[in-house]
Amino acid sequence: MKLLEERIQKDGKIRDGGAVLKVDSFLNHQIDVELYNEIGKEFFRLFGDEKVTKILTIEASGIGIACIAGQYFDVPVIFAKKSKTKNIDGGVYTAQVESFTHGRIYDIMVAREFLLPTDRVLLIDDFLANGAALEGLIQIVRGAGATLVGAGICVEKAFQPGGERIRSQGIRVESLARIRSMSEEKGVEFC
Amino acid sequence: MKLLEERIQKDGKIRDGGAVLKVDSFLNHQIDVELYNEIGKEFFRLFGDEKVTKILTIEASGIGIACIAGQYFDVPVIFAKKSKTKNIDGGVYTAQVESFTHGRIYDIMVAREFLLPTDRVLLIDDFLANGAALEGLIQIVRGAGATLVGAGICVEKAFQPGGERIRSQGIRVESLARIRSMSEEKGVEFC
Repeated sequence: MKLLEERIQKDGKIRDGGAVLKVDSFLNHQIDVELYNEIGKEFFRLFGDEKVTKILTIEASGIGIACIAGQYFDVPVIFAKKSKTKNIDGGVYTAQVESFTHGRIYDIMVAREFLLPTDRVLLIDDFLANGAALEGLIQIVRGAGATLVGAGICVEKAFQPGGERIRSQGIRVESLARIRSMSEEKGVEFC
Repeated sequence: MKLLEERIQKDGKIRDGGAVLKVDSFLNHQIDVELYNEIGKEFFRLFGDEKVTKILTIEASGIGIACIAGQYFDVPVIFAKKSKTKNIDGGVYTAQVESFTHGRIYDIMVAREFLLPTDRVLLIDDFLANGAALEGLIQIVRGAGATLVGAGICVEKAFQPGGERIRSQGIRVESLARIRSMSEEKGVEFC
């Protein structure tokens, strides 16, 4: 998606010797809602024929994108929660996720009542790198016996192993910007 | 807002002897995007004349509502983060928040570059009860020297002290559903 690639070139910042891409001025801290809208539209162009019944994402930065995309699909959005709160009753699907950004392992969960075997689920998230969050969501969809339609990702770090590992399972992953390489000297190169 | 009150009556669940209102089938775990849209529209009706330049919310459940509302205001949305990640550079505004739902104290933060003294900020969140999260956001807006336009809240537990304490500071708080009392026996009564 040219619009997103151009925005990353313009406003993305590379940190930690090329390990971290900061897109927090438009994607995951401050949000350009108009850009989200174009992203949502593009996900609908890609997955609109798939009879999606639920969009599933994970807190926190996936939620806004999923909600805006949900307007195009006209289906409920579910966000997997990262910690057990008082507001979830007993029955939940869970998965363990290792966070690269936060440097820890945490549980994610979705209340069982919201994912049914008849559901056709589209996963949406802002980033795909090591694939841990996405694999957690996939595990939850499988636990529910629902059909996994695929995953819509904003930015994929294609030089990290997550995307290839998940696609090799036959899962459709559509990333709107796929980064081949990045460094503080040379900037971002897309696939 | 009648639509939200009716939805709470229909799908809200009261737990823990009247202490907890679960709205996770439509507001803060599974999301009814069409309802979010009506909520966003209502916030715009209430605050649309206030020359809002930024919407500020807090992860996680505020993000979706703020993004959908952001479409009406046509301004960027910022969500305060709950933990320091590798993706925030040094300069941040912070505040401490005590979470009733999670039973702990945590820091919230917003990168300084996204809140300017010239900004007119609307706060948006899903719940107002003890007011801790909202007061954290207010502290951040003040730290930035920005103008606080007010707060748009979906559900206020009016029998808890947050709303009154914040309004008594002269801050405009608009809650779309204000709960006077709730109990497992009698259900929810609105103000």
